[in-house]
Amino acid sequence: MFIDKDTICALATPPGMGAISTIRLSGSKAIKICNEHFPSKDLTMVNSHTLHYGTLRNNTKVIDEVVVSIFKNPNSYTGEDIVEISCHGSIYVQNQIIQLLLSSGARLAKGGEFTLRAFANGKMDLSQAEAVSDLIASESESAHELAIKQMRGGFSKELKILRAELINFASLIELELDFSEEDVEFADRQTFLELLNKIKSTLKGLIDSFAIGNVMKNGISVAIVGRPNVGKSTLLNSLVNEERAIVSSTAGTTRDTIEDIVNINGISFRFIDTAGLRSTDDDIESIGIKKALEKVHSSQIIVFVMDTTQSIPIQLEELENIKSKVKDNVLILINKIDSKPLQTSIENAIEISAKEKKGLNEFRNKLVEFSQTSSKNFGQTIISNNRHLEALNQALHYVDNIMSNIEANLSSDLLSLDVKQALHHLGEITGEVSTDDLLDNIFSNFCIGK
Amino acid sequence: MFIDKDTICALATPPGMGAISTIRLSGSKAIKICNEHFPSKDLTMVNSHTLHYGTLRNNTKVIDEVVVSIFKNPNSYTGEDIVEISCHGSIYVQNQIIQLLLSSGARLAKGGEFTLRAFANGKMDLSQAEAVSDLIASESESAHELAIKQMRGGFSKELKILRAELINFASLIELELDFSEEDVEFADRQTFLELLNKIKSTLKGLIDSFAIGNVMKNGISVAIVGRPNVGKSTLLNSLVNEERAIVSSTAGTTRDTIEDIVNINGISFRFIDTAGLRSTDDDIESIGIKKALEKVHSSQIIVFVMDTTQSIPIQLEELENIKSKVKDNVLILINKIDSKPLQTSIENAIEISAKEKKGLNEFRNKLVEFSQTSSKNFGQTIISNNRHLEALNQALHYVDNIMSNIEANLSSDLLSLDVKQALHHLGEITGEVSTDDLLDNIFSNFCIGK
Repeated sequence: MFIDKDTICALATPPGMGAISTIRLSGSKAIKICNEHFPSKDLTMVNSHTLHYGTLRNNTKVIDEVVVSIFKNPNSYTGEDIVEISCHGSIYVQNQIIQLLLSSGARLAKGGEFTLRAFANGKMDLSQAEAVSDLIASESESAHELAIKQMRGGFSKELKILRAELINFASLIELELDFSEEDVEFADRQTFLELLNKIKSTLKGLIDSFAIGNVMKNGISVAIVGRPNVGKSTLLNSLVNEERAIVSSTAGTTRDTIEDIVNINGISFRFIDTAGLRSTDDDIESIGIKKALEKVHSSQIIVFVMDTTQSIPIQLEELENIKSKVKDNVLILINKIDSKPLQTSIENAIEISAKEKKGLNEFRNKLVEFSQTSSKNFGQTIISNNRHLEALNQALHYVDNIMSNIEANLSSDLLSLDVKQALHHLGEITGEVSTDDLLDNIFSNFCIGK
Repeated sequence: MFIDKDTICALATPPGMGAISTIRLSGSKAIKICNEHFPSKDLTMVNSHTLHYGTLRNNTKVIDEVVVSIFKNPNSYTGEDIVEISCHGSIYVQNQIIQLLLSSGARLAKGGEFTLRAFANGKMDLSQAEAVSDLIASESESAHELAIKQMRGGFSKELKILRAELINFASLIELELDFSEEDVEFADRQTFLELLNKIKSTLKGLIDSFAIGNVMKNGISVAIVGRPNVGKSTLLNSLVNEERAIVSSTAGTTRDTIEDIVNINGISFRFIDTAGLRSTDDDIESIGIKKALEKVHSSQIIVFVMDTTQSIPIQLEELENIKSKVKDNVLILINKIDSKPLQTSIENAIEISAKEKKGLNEFRNKLVEFSQTSSKNFGQTIISNNRHLEALNQALHYVDNIMSNIEANLSSDLLSLDVKQALHHLGEITGEVSTDDLLDNIFSNFCIGK
């Protein structure tokens, strides 16, 4: 249908220099194109799932000594013939090889095009394909777990079964339309309502799971608030730096640009540092404080930092002010206990020294505890994708319509329209219903080479 | 000897996020360790050079769906059993897999340790191993060509043959020592001198090739000089940006941090922007100008930029001043022809507009021409490694000694010492003679995973 049959190629490993890099070719000419430049062996004669060492040449000029992996259709990622060329990780060599393949008739793959072909060839459904992208982007245990589950078929199986049952009813309703003058009922209304109830409850469960799925994927937002100079930024730096020290043995990463995400026990916390709260005549500062209060509203957890060296009553007043605006998700930290111990006692507060990194473990444990009280209630199936949420909401809307129409004893032709809409939206999630625009939109967010 | 028999593992592809990443295991337990976490198939029973799709698990928890490559000793890069795990290119997944392998008895590889094992197991000699590192770092056609040739055995074969002949003579000289009281000559002095002459000429050829090898590897240094505000920086920016535009379809790279290297026709030019030349009382500016003049001396090509909108006689005076200090490698550019045409004629000058990117192609062609006049004289064998240069110079020194000692009719025992030294230094290049320190020094410069 929408898949052209060019042979595509792209760098599949991260860009840059490393020990080895992999360039991937997929399509009916993949093996032939690589073979033209691989005099060491006739690759058209080898078995699938085999590795071949040799030189890759541009005419007689050696570009590199490489290892070639051969995957024959349909037993490959895309379902087409795939060749992976594993070369030395020089940027120059990577480019030379890609140029060579392009000059032999391959074309550069677009973002996600390998996975798009896997979907088109029935190797995975749409929600699984989307999970591949989530998996690659996953930075925490929970985001990873969510993506792996979805990639391995997770909740789409469930939807497919319900959709198949709904299709069954849809065909019975259609049959009624053919016999509409005889006023017969092929689809038993009671059984139909029972199925619709089951579908409705599944849809609602999935829709409700989105809040927690979104947190698992994107992290829990934590606003750090407090009066000026209580040590909010120092706290954030300490948390980030301690995590850095822990992960420093691993490959240098994107972590540099998202300084405010900290992984604790496999959960991502997205810390938001805010302007110090106080009354001020300064216009710019006022804007900052206004923004801080907005953050308080949109965050899942609020950390209120107090300073033992500043006036405690004024700070407690500020705390009450915050508490009056939000619910019970406020966690209180008493900072600078290295400079001055806390004189009074404040309930449920954790005493820390952000500067000396004291009490941070207790703080971290408390954060994890806070985050789990809200997520424990969910079972296996969790969605985290905005597109899925939208389709589920649409499907639920039409299921509700059908149910009230049945109860109002409306005719089959009116039911039929809503059933088709419900089927359409359920099918959108797994890709049984898809348009080129939808696919473009999904796969263009993938990285090249996947 | 110095190789311990741990099984080592490391990320082999560049760090960061991509479609796929590869984690490499090498050692006697490589297959066993991977197999423990790969329930899909028994990897201990499969053939070498085969690919296996399945899930990698930490107990029952799925870490990723992966493809495993199996290379059995001795037919692998290191000569040991190698397993390459190709996973989704998520940083989290990469780390989880490495942690899993470490927990099962592998240890993290040190920089270059895979290649060190390849050397220790006789898969390549030392100069070839060094070329692997050069190949990965190569950024231009000439650097790449040099590294590929050396990796594929280039000049070390030549040295090995000469060294073998020298060993032959050394043993004859040793034999003379055993019979020293009888005053016999097993090693014919005339034939020995002929061999030494041949070795000497080869060594000298290699030593002389270093200058050009160094340029091929590191690029040709080009100093851009001229009076203030003639457009030196604009010129450099135009060259760099045009190249960027050309290469922008390829993966984003280290190019960002080395803005002054520009590839033209496969040759790297290392442009050096200098302070404007003029008489000044400003101390800091004087230091800048002094440095500019130093750059002029150390550069292989000097580009003198003139400005049509400034006084031409003053600039010509400055040009003569520069020319008097260096040889004939000065290339003259007349800039800003878009603002004001050049009134007089200046021999061999190229008229450009750096701002409007006019005349840059002619400039590039001239640079390539300049660079080639000096490099055309060299044949096949070119060295580019400082360590090799040092060893070759040492070997040459002892060969010279032996020759004059033979001509002075000195005794075998005196010859013997110098012959041993010459053999030692020749052996250092290919690794037939090596120490742990030397190997540490070489391989610690490699990236992890190679």
